[in-house]
Amino acid sequence: MSQLDLSAYQVRTDLALEAVEMATELTAAPLPGIEREMFEDNGILITRLHVQDQAGSQAIGKMVGRYITIEVPQLRNGDTTVQDRVATHMAKEFELFLQRSNINKDAKILIVGLGNWNVTPDALGPIVVENVVVTRHFFELMPNDVAPGYRPVSAVSPGVLGTTGIESSEIVKGIVDQSKPDLVIAIDALASKSIERVNTTIQIADTGIHPGSGIGNKRKGITQEALGVPVIAIGVPTVLYASTIVNNTIDLMRNHLANHNGDNDKIFGLLNQMSEDERLTFVKEVLEPVGHNLLVTPKDIDEFIEDIGNIIASGLNAALHEAIDSSNVAAYTH
Amino acid sequence: MSQLDLSAYQVRTDLALEAVEMATELTAAPLPGIEREMFEDNGILITRLHVQDQAGSQAIGKMVGRYITIEVPQLRNGDTTVQDRVATHMAKEFELFLQRSNINKDAKILIVGLGNWNVTPDALGPIVVENVVVTRHFFELMPNDVAPGYRPVSAVSPGVLGTTGIESSEIVKGIVDQSKPDLVIAIDALASKSIERVNTTIQIADTGIHPGSGIGNKRKGITQEALGVPVIAIGVPTVLYASTIVNNTIDLMRNHLANHNGDNDKIFGLLNQMSEDERLTFVKEVLEPVGHNLLVTPKDIDEFIEDIGNIIASGLNAALHEAIDSSNVAAYTH
Amino acid sequence: MSQLDLSAYQVRTDLALEAVEMATELTAAPLPGIEREMFEDNGILITRLHVQDQAGSQAIGKMVGRYITIEVPQLRNGDTTVQDRVATHMAKEFELFLQRSNINKDAKILIVGLGNWNVTPDALGPIVVENVVVTRHFFELMPNDVAPGYRPVSAVSPGVLGTTGIESSEIVKGIVDQSKPDLVIAIDALASKSIERVNTTIQIADTGIHPGSGIGNKRKGITQEALGVPVIAIGVPTVLYASTIVNNTIDLMRNHLANHNGDNDKIFGLLNQMSEDERLTFVKEVLEPVGHNLLVTPKDIDEFIEDIGNIIASGLNAALHEAIDSSNVAAYTH
Amino acid sequence: MSQLDLSAYQVRTDLALEAVEMATELTAAPLPGIEREMFEDNGILITRLHVQDQAGSQAIGKMVGRYITIEVPQLRNGDTTVQDRVATHMAKEFELFLQRSNINKDAKILIVGLGNWNVTPDALGPIVVENVVVTRHFFELMPNDVAPGYRPVSAVSPGVLGTTGIESSEIVKGIVDQSKPDLVIAIDALASKSIERVNTTIQIADTGIHPGSGIGNKRKGITQEALGVPVIAIGVPTVLYASTIVNNTIDLMRNHLANHNGDNDKIFGLLNQMSEDERLTFVKEVLEPVGHNLLVTPKDIDEFIEDIGNIIASGLNAALHEAIDSSNVAAYTH
Repeated sequence: MSQLDLSAYQVRTDLALEAVEMATELTAAPLPGIEREMFEDNGILITRLHVQDQAGSQAIGKMVGRYITIEVPQLRNGDTTVQDRVATHMAKEFELFLQRSNINKDAKILIVGLGNWNVTPDALGPIVVENVVVTRHFFELMPNDVAPGYRPVSAVSPGVLGTTGIESSEIVKGIVDQSKPDLVIAIDALASKSIERVNTTIQIADTGIHPGSGIGNKRKGITQEALGVPVIAIGVPTVLYASTIVNNTIDLMRNHLANHNGDNDKIFGLLNQMSEDERLTFVKEVLEPVGHNLLVTPKDIDEFIEDIGNIIASGLNAALHEAIDSSNVAAYTH
Repeated sequence: MSQLDLSAYQVRTDLALEAVEMATELTAAPLPGIEREMFEDNGILITRLHVQDQAGSQAIGKMVGRYITIEVPQLRNGDTTVQDRVATHMAKEFELFLQRSNINKDAKILIVGLGNWNVTPDALGPIVVENVVVTRHFFELMPNDVAPGYRPVSAVSPGVLGTTGIESSEIVKGIVDQSKPDLVIAIDALASKSIERVNTTIQIADTGIHPGSGIGNKRKGITQEALGVPVIAIGVPTVLYASTIVNNTIDLMRNHLANHNGDNDKIFGLLNQMSEDERLTFVKEVLEPVGHNLLVTPKDIDEFIEDIGNIIASGLNAALHEAIDSSNVAAYTH
Repeated sequence: MSQLDLSAYQVRTDLALEAVEMATELTAAPLPGIEREMFEDNGILITRLHVQDQAGSQAIGKMVGRYITIEVPQLRNGDTTVQDRVATHMAKEFELFLQRSNINKDAKILIVGLGNWNVTPDALGPIVVENVVVTRHFFELMPNDVAPGYRPVSAVSPGVLGTTGIESSEIVKGIVDQSKPDLVIAIDALASKSIERVNTTIQIADTGIHPGSGIGNKRKGITQEALGVPVIAIGVPTVLYASTIVNNTIDLMRNHLANHNGDNDKIFGLLNQMSEDERLTFVKEVLEPVGHNLLVTPKDIDEFIEDIGNIIASGLNAALHEAIDSSNVAAYTH
Repeated sequence: MSQLDLSAYQVRTDLALEAVEMATELTAAPLPGIEREMFEDNGILITRLHVQDQAGSQAIGKMVGRYITIEVPQLRNGDTTVQDRVATHMAKEFELFLQRSNINKDAKILIVGLGNWNVTPDALGPIVVENVVVTRHFFELMPNDVAPGYRPVSAVSPGVLGTTGIESSEIVKGIVDQSKPDLVIAIDALASKSIERVNTTIQIADTGIHPGSGIGNKRKGITQEALGVPVIAIGVPTVLYASTIVNNTIDLMRNHLANHNGDNDKIFGLLNQMSEDERLTFVKEVLEPVGHNLLVTPKDIDEFIEDIGNIIASGLNAALHEAIDSSNVAAYTH
């Protein structure tokens, strides 16, 4: 999880869902090139989004591709029953995602756990890697003895630039070249653009991971172009900036009062006139010079990151191996 | 670290320093019953406060007692040179604190590491306990063989109510009754009342730890009354509420504009008229019903908590044992 | 886990089972004052032993009391199906043990996890404590709201003398005095007297934990005499001395050849004439002066200690709370 | 650390030193093609061995190459003073080793930490990787701003086959192809062939890591042939088989009695006549069928592996970067 990577990734992926909402509100008509399915199961809201073409891409400002968002506010509560239900949905959604993306049932998979093992809110990728069922070596060493219902899956945690000295994307490229998977699944913790997404949301997208541009940036992505094989990214927002909290909250305050027929111009003065971007810029201007635009994570992140890592690993295990039952996905992880 | 405990502890201890500042501003005269020394050493600001009597206590609304605050904004940067300097100051301050509190050089000490080992921002106490030099058993088992310059020090981590089922204060009381120390030093991570205190401040006070009152509260304190021996509390704010971030930031925004000759009434509307408490209540009203008044901690808490734990352990080792040199305090911890 | 404690504990508890076997072989008649039940369930061998009186105690050289041994050689393999079966047996045996010891269904329990969190083979006690369902605080804070089928259970890890400076027994005594349980259950990792017991065996006894005598030993036990309430000890051998491995293996070699009609006197020379004790003394004489009588543990101890800790915690959860089903005991631990 | 790899690695590397000793004893003359330097510094024994050509290789049955062994029996005691001295020697020896191997001062280095993070005695490689100073990214991203006295160093932990599904050698090959170092330094925990080497010895060799042959073995090495760049291997024996302990001890017993003029044929019978290999085979025959040929590690492995990991990381930091002073090498690791 790096600041540049994440904010960029966010801009492209996180807001796919919201981009559609905003665009729909403006036009009140179906958007061209955009397909959206939403459903809710007792506190679990799932949105499947397909940006089908350039028209759709321009309409909402997102890359062409498939996106899934699983939103579960209750994930913050550490309830194991909810967790099991999310794992089951994750498994089904991921299976469907693979089908629609025409990924073959025998396709060889490399799971890449991005992030830093030693930074709890950034340890999601490594935790998922620890808990997925790995089978590639059985196919390599004793191909005739592998039980039916499994496919070759491998899994690595490439570390982060600051501790390896090598870009994760370079490490992954090297491993892909050697181990020749048909598909890469990359898991990463994300910086959230909104307070309500933190520790509540799983995002899946087939557009890969694009590090930030600008600042003479030389960093490479984990994308089909870079690796030569398709890349599905799974992300969970686990951190956010103090400025995001402030800006979101002012919005919530404004909505709250508007709902109560408050005169927001009177109460919030010019703050109420600013666009969201202007206000965020103002907030940052105040916090950053004194070092207070902290990147923060919920206090109970240790427990959350273990739980969500297990949910994603369980979901992947069931989605990738037919022999693992999606109704009992949690049994294969610790 | 528990919410009730912390907020209460904060109200009493965290603000000792600020309470003086506020009271001083109002009167522009020395406060009766309050003694204050402050000095700064290249980014390390140390304030020694003595609330000498009821007059002083009433003037600033704090318990009678001694308070030290070590403020180091650079502690957020993970710079080992700064950390070593802070450990050395911590050692000197703590030694002076013991002297002024008339704690004997041979006094037997029990160090109590409050908090939850498995919750990183709450693990400060247990980490300090892991890194202090423990000697009591040598005095018990082979009293004639202990080298000069040491005193009997023991150290325990009593756990938290949610995982033990027993109040920390009861556990500590039992251990005190059995092991009979002359002084208890209790270390705890705290919830911060301000964004600028998080991961920057060490607080020392001889008033003990007082859990929150209200809500039919039956919880007991870790105090001289409860334990029968003096209690020195060492605290570090490591978490804060989203509402604190928002409220602090609005203040910072107002100060920022006031400094730039802005018309705050125009810009902030009625927000500018509210008292800090009213604004905080408003912010909470908006965030709490939707579950967004998150208790958060900086993303790099894993590294910070290790570092500050070592600083405090190093400081205690040098302050408690003459044989450990305060100029090289860091060598005795991992 | 300390050397003195363990060897003593071993001599008294570990060999209860073997003491009976040896005594029975000699007499070929039922031993007076000894009751023994054994049964095997597909690789899980359970022995219930009751030393009823002084006659029985003298016959086998063990304290009067109840002993259970659960032996599962397959525990070394990390098979989760076997682990679940052992947890279920553990629950049933422990429930029966409580009944026969006349422990009331409402008896308040304190679980004590002895050992050192930072030494993997000694971390059994703390791991069990982390995974038991703790309820005492609910009974204290809201006695009318506790669901039926639970009893008050608390759990603490007192640490070890070397890191706290206080005897575990003193810490436990203090906590017992304050929290007033009706029964203490103490869990500890043990040094094994035989290679076949390491990482295969769970032992339960109601005779408490007796540290070693001799060497001017001042250490206190965790016993009914010391604490004023009954103590049930649960132990798992996780380490053993190099000398034990050597001595055991020479025995296995002798048995192996005897079974193949070998002339053991010819093959083993005088080694074959020595008593087991003489041989062990000889082995130690050779290894100890050069520092090679290492205390060792199996290489995969990290995984084993987690697994066995979960088994014991699961078993205790089901045995102590009627509301937790012994057929699904594993669900309540991580 | 895998059994096959290790035993093979051991046969080739571990015994270089002993092979010379045995060969020297036989001939009592300098061996052709073998250069050996030994010196001792207060409990630290260092042997530099150079197998110069095929004649030397055949004389001692080791590959042509350079070998260093640092033997420190006191490493088992956890003494920090000894550890610092070993780190300083390690730094000097490694620097000399690089010089004699004609590795350029600017050569780009990739440090590879083999082994399994979650298996304590196998975690040496990952721990070293965590503690080395990594600089390659500075050279890549801002080549003009790197302070003098550093060279490009990167570091990765490729994981183990059982958890990644990919051979470590394949992962390393991929990373080498992408990041193009001039030299690979591979660190691994080893299985010891003798009880006295466990947790006492650091071995350095420029012959790479050769996994075992036999059993239709398809596993690839981490060698110059495989990677295209030179490979220096650093190994520390941290585990050993029960059978090794037994066989070593019987030898120690025989030597002990021989030194005391014992009649070993009388005392040990035919055991005394067997060759070491025959006796080991016998021991294994007895232990393996009953599952008792345990692979074990000293009980205090958690502390040892941290300490030795820091020693090696400190030594590498000082040896690889001129700016890091070999007299104060420990300051750069945690």
